[in-house]
Amino acid sequence: MNARLKIAMLCYPEMTLLDLLGPETVFSKFSDIYLVWKTLEPVHTDTNLSINPNCTLAGCPSDLDILFVPGGPGTGQMMQDAQILSFLRDKSCTSRYITSVCTGSLILAAAGLMTGYKATTHWSAREELGMLGAIVIKERVVIDGNRITGGGITSGIDFGLKVMAKLIDEDVAKATTLFLEYDPEPPFTTGTPDTADDKILSMLLPHLAPIKDGIIAATNKICRKDNQLLYAS
Amino acid sequence: MNARLKIAMLCYPEMTLLDLLGPETVFSKFSDIYLVWKTLEPVHTDTNLSINPNCTLAGCPSDLDILFVPGGPGTGQMMQDAQILSFLRDKSCTSRYITSVCTGSLILAAAGLMTGYKATTHWSAREELGMLGAIVIKERVVIDGNRITGGGITSGIDFGLKVMAKLIDEDVAKATTLFLEYDPEPPFTTGTPDTADDKILSMLLPHLAPIKDGIIAATNKICRKDNQLLYAS
Repeated sequence: MNARLKIAMLCYPEMTLLDLLGPETVFSKFSDIYLVWKTLEPVHTDTNLSINPNCTLAGCPSDLDILFVPGGPGTGQMMQDAQILSFLRDKSCTSRYITSVCTGSLILAAAGLMTGYKATTHWSAREELGMLGAIVIKERVVIDGNRITGGGITSGIDFGLKVMAKLIDEDVAKATTLFLEYDPEPPFTTGTPDTADDKILSMLLPHLAPIKDGIIAATNKICRKDNQLLYAS
Repeated sequence: MNARLKIAMLCYPEMTLLDLLGPETVFSKFSDIYLVWKTLEPVHTDTNLSINPNCTLAGCPSDLDILFVPGGPGTGQMMQDAQILSFLRDKSCTSRYITSVCTGSLILAAAGLMTGYKATTHWSAREELGMLGAIVIKERVVIDGNRITGGGITSGIDFGLKVMAKLIDEDVAKATTLFLEYDPEPPFTTGTPDTADDKILSMLLPHLAPIKDGIIAATNKICRKDNQLLYAS
């Protein structure tokens, strides 16, 4: 067995907890996991659950195997949080892998860390990921150099197992698949916009609008700023 | 849209958080969710994450649509916790559905609530579930009357969507499938003992042993006690 992985996972208000818990559950037995936020106060997530960070930004180690960012309703806010973007840029220099699930890749992109890299995100945010400089790939898990990104929410489990096979051992990932009884039987085939009909999409879109609006606003601000910088140089 | 569901989910030390978070994420937008434990202090789960209950046993409402119990390493302990078993028995009388994911069904069974019902659990605990009086069915989600049980850990998402379709609306469950981008692509086909080879099973079993030992010890105690009661009557 290889040495334990050192993994920092960003926790932030209104994050989607399942984005983080899929990979966290996969890795937990084989890793030291730092749940990082500005303070150690409880962080309220997208559902009714609040979780407790175990590490502050300042206390986070630098020699990370994996730097991980989840997505969620708080994405737009994080994309404009100078302290968080600076933290991600700083840690990215000394982390072996820079990773995300769901709209977490937009936060990495807002920090300038996805420019020119192939990447994915929740299906609803692909356009903005492209505007922020990533090469958007419509796959569930995308690996490009040391950038590894997963699609929407439930893809975190696939992401975790793939990363585990790559960074730890394929048999360990297979045994973890068995432990998790990961033999999914989705009751419906509506998991992507390509397979869901218009009626289902129309039902969902109003619920996504507030999250999407926050991401669009943040993306527009960042792109405008970049253009200004470009014109100024 | 129907009225919001009233759901109580038991939180306990060393529970498997993913058992709970799968269905919790599915339901959260359409439900009032009570995360119930003896106190409101943080509960340490199976991974590095601790969560914060929002309701005590005494504060939990009785007119529940769903009573839910997750599984995990703490299962054996809960199977012998008189206060918890009494809480479950009490709430079961006034809940529309009595449900579990993973080894949570053994806690329900230890409370006497699965006797004669078709049910499932994590693949590693099927024998004990049968010893406790349930009719064990090797399926991912089992519905028998008002008992609904899911298999191991990741089955919580399938469980949640099936229950949502049944109790709320099928189109809402389809839209939630799209929101969660639930179009899984397991990197490995080793999610069940039937599909994993002996090498993978042998790698995993020692890691499961402490959990399994706790469940066996609790099951033996309960069955011995029941026999004594039987002989005494």
